[in-house]
Amino acid sequence: MIFYDSPNPAPNPRRVRIFAAEKGIELRSQPVSIVKREHKSPEYLALNPRGQTPALQLDDGTVITESVATCRYLEAVHPDPPLFGIGAVEQALIEMWSRRVEMILMPPVGAVWVNTHQFTAALPGRNMDWGEANRPRVDDALRFFDTSLEGRTFLATDHYSIADILLLTTVDFAAFIGIGIAEDLNNLRAWHARVTARPSAAA
Amino acid sequence: MIFYDSPNPAPNPRRVRIFAAEKGIELRSQPVSIVKREHKSPEYLALNPRGQTPALQLDDGTVITESVATCRYLEAVHPDPPLFGIGAVEQALIEMWSRRVEMILMPPVGAVWVNTHQFTAALPGRNMDWGEANRPRVDDALRFFDTSLEGRTFLATDHYSIADILLLTTVDFAAFIGIGIAEDLNNLRAWHARVTARPSAAA
Repeated sequence: MIFYDSPNPAPNPRRVRIFAAEKGIELRSQPVSIVKREHKSPEYLALNPRGQTPALQLDDGTVITESVATCRYLEAVHPDPPLFGIGAVEQALIEMWSRRVEMILMPPVGAVWVNTHQFTAALPGRNMDWGEANRPRVDDALRFFDTSLEGRTFLATDHYSIADILLLTTVDFAAFIGIGIAEDLNNLRAWHARVTARPSAAA
Repeated sequence: MIFYDSPNPAPNPRRVRIFAAEKGIELRSQPVSIVKREHKSPEYLALNPRGQTPALQLDDGTVITESVATCRYLEAVHPDPPLFGIGAVEQALIEMWSRRVEMILMPPVGAVWVNTHQFTAALPGRNMDWGEANRPRVDDALRFFDTSLEGRTFLATDHYSIADILLLTTVDFAAFIGIGIAEDLNNLRAWHARVTARPSAAA
């Protein structure tokens, strides 16, 4: 299989790289340069009509896009260590926390990125007011996760999971666009240091 | 277990009701009135600090929020019929299509709802320009799903899945806020008629 990958700071391919690293899976990668707009080339659009990375092409030609869907495929074919949880309750709680990252933190980060950042200046339909209004919402979201991490080692359960990967990659992307973790968010800072110390975080 | 539910047009509780109906699960429901702001009451916030419905409280007190996480719990305890797929590829494709609904269609629908609708006029920080700019993006998204449904009976695989439930509830919520399926989207219209004809759609 072939993993269509883009380098940092793109957060979505990094999710899959971290996930694979945690499982010891070596992906055969094909780089797709976002700077060179290779993700919008006819060849790549034939693989993923959304023109986004990552994508995983299986040996039979099936293409799986969307980072979490790609991770779920890897979980099914390489179950250990389980990163989506074992059993009904743990699986549901990991899904709940994954979705909280995606529904609470990612939208304001994305709104700031798409509407205000110098690297997205060429995008049509930007709304600077909307982007700036989302900047404090990123901090609000980081505070929610700080509170949620009180007394916890990892976000969703007592072991590392896909929910931690989603939070890590989103927090790091927020920092890339200029929104760091506030000084007083001690739980989130300690968690961030903990998950960043794992070798997989270098992926 | 207790299912904290809100009536239509709230799209998220409906997802779980449809999911449960497809599996023949009878949920013990506790209504939470959004009109009466019961989802922001201290009692409900103690269950779900996000103040959103639905939520599922298990007999041991564990609370699962986020509609898809709740459905995933129900899938694990009532596997038949499988609505998240069987096997690595099918599970990944259902996740991929579910996420496409959530990442492509839901954001512009939510932006129109939150920023322009008369029922959300009291929300702080509305941006009418941003809301109106998202109205054509809803139509763009519906066109993507129309194209994707060409030659298909269901969205993700050859049988009904959670991805169909997410698309149905989001399309119906879009119609509620005034954005219907354009006349020329024949694949999407036929699919919508097909999934709406299932008894579960009345949930």
